[in-house]
Amino acid sequence: MTVGIVGLGLIGGSLGLDIRMNGFADKILGVEAHEAHAEEALKFGLVDEIVEIEEACITADLLVLAVPVRAMADLFPKALDLIRPETVVLDMGSTKKALAAAIASHPNRGRAVLAHPMAGTEFSGPRAAVHNLFQGKVAILCDLEQTDQDAREKAERLFKSLFMRLLYMNSADHDLHAAYVSHVSHISSFVLALTVLEKEKSEQNIFDLASGGFASTVRLAKSSPRMWADVYEQNADHLVDVLDSYLAKMTQFRNAIAEGNFDQTYQLMEEANDIGRILNRQHLARPAVPGV
Amino acid sequence: MTVGIVGLGLIGGSLGLDIRMNGFADKILGVEAHEAHAEEALKFGLVDEIVEIEEACITADLLVLAVPVRAMADLFPKALDLIRPETVVLDMGSTKKALAAAIASHPNRGRAVLAHPMAGTEFSGPRAAVHNLFQGKVAILCDLEQTDQDAREKAERLFKSLFMRLLYMNSADHDLHAAYVSHVSHISSFVLALTVLEKEKSEQNIFDLASGGFASTVRLAKSSPRMWADVYEQNADHLVDVLDSYLAKMTQFRNAIAEGNFDQTYQLMEEANDIGRILNRQHLARPAVPGV
Repeated sequence: MTVGIVGLGLIGGSLGLDIRMNGFADKILGVEAHEAHAEEALKFGLVDEIVEIEEACITADLLVLAVPVRAMADLFPKALDLIRPETVVLDMGSTKKALAAAIASHPNRGRAVLAHPMAGTEFSGPRAAVHNLFQGKVAILCDLEQTDQDAREKAERLFKSLFMRLLYMNSADHDLHAAYVSHVSHISSFVLALTVLEKEKSEQNIFDLASGGFASTVRLAKSSPRMWADVYEQNADHLVDVLDSYLAKMTQFRNAIAEGNFDQTYQLMEEANDIGRILNRQHLARPAVPGV
Repeated sequence: MTVGIVGLGLIGGSLGLDIRMNGFADKILGVEAHEAHAEEALKFGLVDEIVEIEEACITADLLVLAVPVRAMADLFPKALDLIRPETVVLDMGSTKKALAAAIASHPNRGRAVLAHPMAGTEFSGPRAAVHNLFQGKVAILCDLEQTDQDAREKAERLFKSLFMRLLYMNSADHDLHAAYVSHVSHISSFVLALTVLEKEKSEQNIFDLASGGFASTVRLAKSSPRMWADVYEQNADHLVDVLDSYLAKMTQFRNAIAEGNFDQTYQLMEEANDIGRILNRQHLARPAVPGV
């Protein structure tokens, strides 16, 4: 199968590495507006060839769109205009509702698959591409009742070839739940970084006192501003809602400390500990291992 | 050397594992009030023997205190009362100023070393003990001008045997900088967990949508409420100050999204990205590696 990948950053580049190696693609065409990135993508073997978007649309059997979500809303209908009747167009963006609306009435809507692989790192660009980024993670597929059966099956084969777990949602629900779990954690990490940079004027102290815990909590603050500003724009209402909850909880925590009510901080933390039980559900059957 | 360890949780237990293996200790005596934990510590080989605090004080050449910081302020003077003249007492707590005050006028103050190894995980208890927890991390030593030269040297030998990097600070500065970098990151993680648990009512959705990024940011929310409530109590003023900054930054971020000012969110994130440069300083000399 010939696969076209538009946008050769972390997601598109990592996809190229995996589908070459697992045999899903015989040939990988890359489309990349940023010239230096296009050169790097070729050099790192993420794709076989760099082509224009028009050529990718005409040549590819499966066209994967992996650009920031603001650009996606223009790109997706354009790609649907240009493809052959049997081509499938799949996007990999982090928001879905606005995109679903942008292609809703397109005559080729049936060839489109809205997907969100819940995988990534804090790095971006072709240099960030890594093998097995998607393995064991979840891929959410949205609004599949509007997608042709063969297109759906091709997308499912792609994600299964990456060893991903498939989930199905409508695009509105996707954006709500993504805001609640994924998007808010990026913002809390960005805000932690801003706070530490403001309060701790000594870079040496930040470097010296940064334990593994701080590094883990602040890791997402290294993420791409371009990608995330677009996500906030597409998912603003849900994000304001969840950030208001975050602010209320943080204020409660702050006030408990200010008032010397450490029983309350204890209770809040005990409540928060429940997240560990939920995230570790798959491990419940395993014997307890020290430190794991 | 005979080492006594009081408190056989994550820190005390991990210390026991390492100093047995690296030969720093010939014999390790453990003191643990929680009976089931004492049994586990023996079973896991964290210590050679469980003894009462009095016996540990009389027998050990080096007594390490690894209990929650509220208990530490009672325990430390009591241990200094009981030790032999040549014994060294070292604490491993996360706050220092109140503890320094609690032992300031003790006749054996010179035998005391105030230390904070900046190492840990989100787990607690003897089962959380792991080899090499301290390796490559920073150990902060406070107010050393009040410690006898031989006691200081013994503490430094201990931390060097664990391959830790030594830093020196006074206890007041320690608490300020620890609040700014380490303690605030725990609170932001607890608050993220509370927010997600409140907004996302479906545990299945939390589990399914939790990417590596969310897991990393929320990891510290699994930490021990007992340990952290004590830290907040000891470091309340600095924490209220840094949480006020956090709340201000989060409000700014939230308002930018609510007002549709995504240029501002972009700028805030670009500013936050600077944390990556600071944390990765030691890697500047290495060649760029994709995905690292």
